[in-house]
Amino acid sequence: MSSDVTPLPAADVARWDEEADVVIAGFGIAGAAAAVEAVRAGADVLVLERTGSWGGAASMAGGFIYLGGGTPIQKACGFEDSVANMAAYLNVAMGPGADEKRIADYCEGSLEHFDWLVGCGVHFKPEFFGEPGWEPMGDQGLMYSGGENSYPFNTIAEPAPRGHVPQMSDKKQGESSAGYMLMKPLVETATAAGARAIYDVRVQRLIVESDGRVVGVFARRYGEEIAVRARRGVVLAMGSFAYNEAMVAQYAPRIAGRPAAAIEQHDGQAIRMAQALGADLAHMDATEVAIFIDPQQLVRGILVNGRGQRYVPEDTYPGRVGQLTLYHQDNTAFLIIDEKAQEEAMASLSPQLMMRPPTWVCGTVAELESEMGLPTGSLQATVSAYNAGAATGEDPLLHKKPQWLRPIGSPVGAIDLRESTGGFTLGGLLTSLDAEVLHVSGEPIPGLFAAGRCTAGLAAWGYASGISLGDGSFYGRRAGRRAAGA
Amino acid sequence: MSSDVTPLPAADVARWDEEADVVIAGFGIAGAAAAVEAVRAGADVLVLERTGSWGGAASMAGGFIYLGGGTPIQKACGFEDSVANMAAYLNVAMGPGADEKRIADYCEGSLEHFDWLVGCGVHFKPEFFGEPGWEPMGDQGLMYSGGENSYPFNTIAEPAPRGHVPQMSDKKQGESSAGYMLMKPLVETATAAGARAIYDVRVQRLIVESDGRVVGVFARRYGEEIAVRARRGVVLAMGSFAYNEAMVAQYAPRIAGRPAAAIEQHDGQAIRMAQALGADLAHMDATEVAIFIDPQQLVRGILVNGRGQRYVPEDTYPGRVGQLTLYHQDNTAFLIIDEKAQEEAMASLSPQLMMRPPTWVCGTVAELESEMGLPTGSLQATVSAYNAGAATGEDPLLHKKPQWLRPIGSPVGAIDLRESTGGFTLGGLLTSLDAEVLHVSGEPIPGLFAAGRCTAGLAAWGYASGISLGDGSFYGRRAGRRAAGA
Repeated sequence: MSSDVTPLPAADVARWDEEADVVIAGFGIAGAAAAVEAVRAGADVLVLERTGSWGGAASMAGGFIYLGGGTPIQKACGFEDSVANMAAYLNVAMGPGADEKRIADYCEGSLEHFDWLVGCGVHFKPEFFGEPGWEPMGDQGLMYSGGENSYPFNTIAEPAPRGHVPQMSDKKQGESSAGYMLMKPLVETATAAGARAIYDVRVQRLIVESDGRVVGVFARRYGEEIAVRARRGVVLAMGSFAYNEAMVAQYAPRIAGRPAAAIEQHDGQAIRMAQALGADLAHMDATEVAIFIDPQQLVRGILVNGRGQRYVPEDTYPGRVGQLTLYHQDNTAFLIIDEKAQEEAMASLSPQLMMRPPTWVCGTVAELESEMGLPTGSLQATVSAYNAGAATGEDPLLHKKPQWLRPIGSPVGAIDLRESTGGFTLGGLLTSLDAEVLHVSGEPIPGLFAAGRCTAGLAAWGYASGISLGDGSFYGRRAGRRAAGA
Repeated sequence: MSSDVTPLPAADVARWDEEADVVIAGFGIAGAAAAVEAVRAGADVLVLERTGSWGGAASMAGGFIYLGGGTPIQKACGFEDSVANMAAYLNVAMGPGADEKRIADYCEGSLEHFDWLVGCGVHFKPEFFGEPGWEPMGDQGLMYSGGENSYPFNTIAEPAPRGHVPQMSDKKQGESSAGYMLMKPLVETATAAGARAIYDVRVQRLIVESDGRVVGVFARRYGEEIAVRARRGVVLAMGSFAYNEAMVAQYAPRIAGRPAAAIEQHDGQAIRMAQALGADLAHMDATEVAIFIDPQQLVRGILVNGRGQRYVPEDTYPGRVGQLTLYHQDNTAFLIIDEKAQEEAMASLSPQLMMRPPTWVCGTVAELESEMGLPTGSLQATVSAYNAGAATGEDPLLHKKPQWLRPIGSPVGAIDLRESTGGFTLGGLLTSLDAEVLHVSGEPIPGLFAAGRCTAGLAAWGYASGISLGDGSFYGRRAGRRAAGA
């Protein structure tokens, strides 16, 4: 990345090639939400999208939106929730270092945001999916997506599922993703209300008046340079920096070389353009981390590190397993699973994509430990302690739920999960709760707004599925309204 | 922190109150090294220091400077070392994510840097200190200061101590610190060569020409605002952001509320001023972390986490123990130590400041485990495995050195080390190897240089004592030379 991100003085702009009240860079979840609200606020809206169509990373995602506090879907599925309960969970799960004010703001607005999404035509089926998995296997609209019902979170707040998934027309045919079913109605709502979009436009620099106000963007379209004037405001909604190698090396080196669930357009350009204006950042080291194994296997085994020690309840959010493995266990994990448990997992309804065969299979744990090269006695002590507890339905070490506790028998296998993680960056521009981009002086940069994964959102370190589409759409709306002057 | 850090246009400066070729902000280790080299390069040098005297955090520090590759002190003490060996260690110990090019640069210049320090009047006594400890107990000039001789580093590079400590006139009288004995000759060298210094001056904003070149600083002196012109260059050497609560919350939240070995002037102002110009950052989440216990105790016990599991060889660099405890073990650790070992530690020559009494003492490990509230069986299994290995002089789990292995007997105690860590931030401005402050576009910001803890130095995540005074002095020199135009 050596593209010029230096702000361009408005005085140097010879000609404005395009013009609108609100100019939105990026037509993923944050850009679409911003477009809807800006156009509804009466603004003339122009969206500039780098690829050939709307969607961004969102339209390829599993589609979780993190919502709670007692949504109609939660109620229909028989779950109690409240704003305070949701915030109590998020304050712990999104940290260490989570921003309580932002979390409170998000939780207080969650029910209204649900209604807004439904009002835009997003449909959620009031059916709960309760099996272990990365996402629902069918078209169910609700699932635990952050380990809310697992230790330690189930001791911090009353467990409630908050992963809301837009319904697909026919998921089993694989004809679309739930993320697409979120994006499509939002984009249609925005365009029906009058928002315009231009594609294949790569936004590169901000255009700034001498008083510091952002008044447009400078972009490339088919090799040609264009200046786009924003009469009221610019909204940056260009995604993460997961694919900017230099930025990852500087800010989040542990995720280097293993981007996942991101798209190549996530090159950090929005962050760079705003930094060039003195914009502040936050939580640049935070990342989502997936571990590449089916949760149906995870819950039925025990996960150990390179010292043969357990370190996470295997029935929690698999993204948490990924984070703890990559960051705290030097990206080294092994799933110990006996033949019967492996067969059960394989027989589950999970898609077989993430199912992993055992790397080693032995008659005894002692043999397995030796085959794996673990310190002598380490795995034997771990399995022995686990089995003793499992026999009485207890897991004193990590509190895996009783339903998944069963002594590990023979033959016993181990799945090598070293270097089996990947993810995307969560840090970015520091914004106010009104989606204003904040200067390092603490003041908003006039005319500049941002939302989505080019901003630091709810997550400071931890994560739950649905947080990115959640804060992206929630603060995308704010960005659109504020940029429109509403 | 809401002070205005916005750059001031040079055209708005009505009068220059002070003027020099090179203006250096901060008179700690990086500022002093910059001053020596800038004045030697023929520049008229002015140092602006916020407090009433030179010294910064350096003059209160233990004084380690990380040097190697075969220094005269290493040789006199009988240790072999090479540039490649030093780099091999640092590439692992300073990571994950360490910058190999910077480490190679630093290692290649290490011998010359040693000579330069000696040439400035810094004296190192050619005597090795080999006991466990945070620093030498006497005036010895060399010590292991990063776990080089402990697992895993002793398997990665040939162990060599590289913590070089300036000799004090009479340490036992407590009349000074080794850091003072480093700072004093550097400051005297700089001032003898003609560098001027003004104290009680708080640098607040950079002054910038319309073409983007930094040409001075705007500061406060006794409530009065002054403009200081830098004819050739400005060097930022103002220390870390450990005491800026907002920045810590945004960039390194785990160290929030527990600054240590930093000074209150470390408020991140240099980073903010340069960010306001579009300067890039790196490794803002990295921190040094001390664990508040005497290493003489650490090596004689076993350290377990909240699950009763060992996780680090107790005879490694105690700062590494601190990092792993704070970041990977949720800041939860307990030292299990029997009565005999505790008595031995107390009888060692260590100063008693960091010695901790046991929080619990019991007749058996089972009782201790119960008293501590650890999961049933967890500590018993850990001690049993440790004792079995210790009986044969082996530690298959973590490879503590045989000299410290002895089965844990009765009575047995545990020292509660929860929330017993603290430290300072290591991240900051991204600079070139020539100490130029880099803009997010990748280009140097003309006229602006930086070194010391307001920059990202050698450490990306890990740390060793002596790295901060090491890279601060090494790149401080570069900053001074380059700012002088040499």
